[in-house]
Amino acid sequence: MSAVPPPGLVQPDAWFIACTSAQLRSTPLAVTVQGRPLVLFRARGGAPTALTDRCPHRNVPLSMGAVRAGELECAYHGWRFDGEGQCVAVPGLVDAEVSLKSRCAERFAARELDGFIWVHSTPGVDQPEEGPFRFPHLDDGHYSTVRREFRVEASLHAAVENTLDVPHTAFLHGGLFRTPEKKNVIDVVVQRHARSAEAHFHGEPAPRGLVGWLLAPQGGVVEHVDRFLLPCIAQVEYRLGAKSHVVATTAFTPVSDDACLVFAVVTYKLPVPGWLVRPFVAPVATRIFGQDAVMLARQRAQVKRFGGEKYTSTELDVLGPQVTRLLKQSATGEPAEPHEHTLRMKT
Amino acid sequence: MSAVPPPGLVQPDAWFIACTSAQLRSTPLAVTVQGRPLVLFRARGGAPTALTDRCPHRNVPLSMGAVRAGELECAYHGWRFDGEGQCVAVPGLVDAEVSLKSRCAERFAARELDGFIWVHSTPGVDQPEEGPFRFPHLDDGHYSTVRREFRVEASLHAAVENTLDVPHTAFLHGGLFRTPEKKNVIDVVVQRHARSAEAHFHGEPAPRGLVGWLLAPQGGVVEHVDRFLLPCIAQVEYRLGAKSHVVATTAFTPVSDDACLVFAVVTYKLPVPGWLVRPFVAPVATRIFGQDAVMLARQRAQVKRFGGEKYTSTELDVLGPQVTRLLKQSATGEPAEPHEHTLRMKT
Amino acid sequence: MSAVPPPGLVQPDAWFIACTSAQLRSTPLAVTVQGRPLVLFRARGGAPTALTDRCPHRNVPLSMGAVRAGELECAYHGWRFDGEGQCVAVPGLVDAEVSLKSRCAERFAARELDGFIWVHSTPGVDQPEEGPFRFPHLDDGHYSTVRREFRVEASLHAAVENTLDVPHTAFLHGGLFRTPEKKNVIDVVVQRHARSAEAHFHGEPAPRGLVGWLLAPQGGVVEHVDRFLLPCIAQVEYRLGAKSHVVATTAFTPVSDDACLVFAVVTYKLPVPGWLVRPFVAPVATRIFGQDAVMLARQRAQVKRFGGEKYTSTELDVLGPQVTRLLKQSATGEPAEPHEHTLRMKT
Repeated sequence: MSAVPPPGLVQPDAWFIACTSAQLRSTPLAVTVQGRPLVLFRARGGAPTALTDRCPHRNVPLSMGAVRAGELECAYHGWRFDGEGQCVAVPGLVDAEVSLKSRCAERFAARELDGFIWVHSTPGVDQPEEGPFRFPHLDDGHYSTVRREFRVEASLHAAVENTLDVPHTAFLHGGLFRTPEKKNVIDVVVQRHARSAEAHFHGEPAPRGLVGWLLAPQGGVVEHVDRFLLPCIAQVEYRLGAKSHVVATTAFTPVSDDACLVFAVVTYKLPVPGWLVRPFVAPVATRIFGQDAVMLARQRAQVKRFGGEKYTSTELDVLGPQVTRLLKQSATGEPAEPHEHTLRMKT
Repeated sequence: MSAVPPPGLVQPDAWFIACTSAQLRSTPLAVTVQGRPLVLFRARGGAPTALTDRCPHRNVPLSMGAVRAGELECAYHGWRFDGEGQCVAVPGLVDAEVSLKSRCAERFAARELDGFIWVHSTPGVDQPEEGPFRFPHLDDGHYSTVRREFRVEASLHAAVENTLDVPHTAFLHGGLFRTPEKKNVIDVVVQRHARSAEAHFHGEPAPRGLVGWLLAPQGGVVEHVDRFLLPCIAQVEYRLGAKSHVVATTAFTPVSDDACLVFAVVTYKLPVPGWLVRPFVAPVATRIFGQDAVMLARQRAQVKRFGGEKYTSTELDVLGPQVTRLLKQSATGEPAEPHEHTLRMKT
Repeated sequence: MSAVPPPGLVQPDAWFIACTSAQLRSTPLAVTVQGRPLVLFRARGGAPTALTDRCPHRNVPLSMGAVRAGELECAYHGWRFDGEGQCVAVPGLVDAEVSLKSRCAERFAARELDGFIWVHSTPGVDQPEEGPFRFPHLDDGHYSTVRREFRVEASLHAAVENTLDVPHTAFLHGGLFRTPEKKNVIDVVVQRHARSAEAHFHGEPAPRGLVGWLLAPQGGVVEHVDRFLLPCIAQVEYRLGAKSHVVATTAFTPVSDDACLVFAVVTYKLPVPGWLVRPFVAPVATRIFGQDAVMLARQRAQVKRFGGEKYTSTELDVLGPQVTRLLKQSATGEPAEPHEHTLRMKT
């Protein structure tokens, strides 16, 4: 019996963020990724280690234990595991080889990058061919960064679609007195590649209100691209001329088919100083996320009540169907074909 | 994938009360009937409308939305639905036919009668052959009416049986010091028709205590009939001579196999003025209902623990077996045969 | 449809403690044993009676009812059951035999012994061949006794193994600063018989700390035997010379595969007066039990998350595998073979 897969699709050979670097300190941390209960701890030297969160001896969670000199000690009988998942101590045992294979804990590759602890989704792969996704502009001194972590009750594809969906913003985030008459028509080019999809929005007016003012006090031509990168990255990128550049990158970690961890990194370069804008970014993002979180949780609940999804899409659902298709192909190993189409949208 | 049926029997072509007229105001209302999540709202002109509570677009509950000019607007992307369930707006869509069939919401016939909103159990039937049940004497100025709404954790047949069951009243509602020695023997005639069953009780003494005094201060001959009318009406009728007439009609709405909404209407004509009696009726009914609700909930829980019902009936279970038989025949389309028998009962 | 068995193994023809004598007073008591909901009450004369906790009439819990003159009266319609489970009253019934077989409640043999109410696991067995387990030394004036009742979220075999497991004590109950270097090597002889297993520990040093002092202020040679007696008794026995003798006997009652009632009886004879020791025994036992209860609950939860147990044992798991084997053989009727082996353990 191996770890339990979630009821939905499982992404193989994928990197997901388990936690932030700051969350993994001197005690073990339990995180579930795609239905697999994992325990994370820092081995000798501080390198993150991810093991199946079940002691091979009597199946208690290893995350109940303690880290001693870079080894994870089970709280029940004191068995110890090193950064390779090897069993290195069975207290009380006389005259016997301790590190039998059957006593080792299942291990997942883990990397610490950009302030996050990433874990690989397939056990026993020591050196995955590809490394984790890298967040853009983190080392560029012209950019400021705001990070936030959330949890949302949603499937991975529903959470990603929501993040990259344009039309819902006028309703879910728009307030009650929007004026549907003031509609601009914009052109959208949608491209699907082997492991990503993106939408380029042409003719989009500058955002109004507080967000618009923060992005470009003087206005300007908007370049807007939304992207999905397998298996878990949603990216919204805005440029207004040369001076304003905002990239909101969200990494989703599917806990199960019903919930995701959300790690959001907003990186921005603006005509106004970063320290001036910073206090506004997080509250706005938190409010928007809160509204999305409620909607996604109700969507998930209703889909479960009805026994499954029954979506009716229009061309306004620009990236959602592409995301679902890429996730399905990636999970099942189907070949992906490149694709491009255009559409028009009123905003 | 259609709406999800409850685990038990489903009554086709049936009218159930979804809510009272007063409960359906300017916001949408979520109600589950026989396992189907419905959203109710008042369309243009105020007529009640019932749709499956799932937006065809992204499956969020339409009951999260708002009613705008008699149209139900989804809270996620602003799709709008009219009183026919037609999709009449997809905000952002350019140059396209909005009201495609795939975008319509599943609709259930709804009627507003006697202060209640009734919904039909089969989707897509615009004009059901039969209308909803009408409560008796509501328009007769000689009668007073008391209404109450409850919810009970019980299957439909168990809730109906409880309402029409005589022997339990001496125990569940009787107090600890009843005197079993004082027993009258009465005759009961039980009749089952195609879509109803009734029991006539002959020789019943006038009720004692507060209830008895309210019904007939001077006593008199009791005429007592209990009725079940498919699919959901339980009626207890008492006459004491020409001056006292009480009809307690209860309409049950099966939310699922585990719970019912209960809409009780007590209509009465008494020798004493209605305004004098009125303050006593509701408290007594509430107390009795509370005791029944606890018992039914425990019964339901125990039936589930044991994996199903295993009833042992006696002839004192006058209408319960008839109710179960009628509900089963109605749900499965079996033909019903008329039946009559008599029995004697000590009370 | 009979009572529902638990998801795991069911022990046939077994006695389990349902409650203490003091817990069964003048009202009926609901207890679940191996997944069967039972109602206990004292029949005429005070003898304990155990029936399936479901009225044969309308399936409500009989434990909602009342005991009247040694008969259990159902709270719904007043049916009455005597100490044999016979239906002796159906109020309202005219001219009919009340005690039909179909109206009787399923009965389980029950005995009151040593301050506990024991029930037999197989319904309808009036006189089981074997009686319940008897706790040792309760009538010996040289011994003192402390009793405690708990509930633990664990399967029967995991709870018993925990009680008889030696190596975990240094970790789960040991504190953070134990010194693993000070290790004694002891010899253990393990014997499995037809319906029991036991381990004799030779060369064990006297326990240290408070427990050690209570057992033998002057020290001495330790005789330590751990025992499991089918189906539910775990016993830890310590002797230090002729003056100190402690027997901790624990009777487990499997409520379901996920939870056990725990009835612990510690009987002891010590060089110091019993009243002096008594105040210390219960707090120490409560603390140890609390730590075990947390661990067992987390173990149970993790086993369920992973869809089952996947244990890796060493020879230090002295009695656990024997307990599991005996429980399985007893549940399935497999023949048991005697067995003996020895091992060495550092403590």
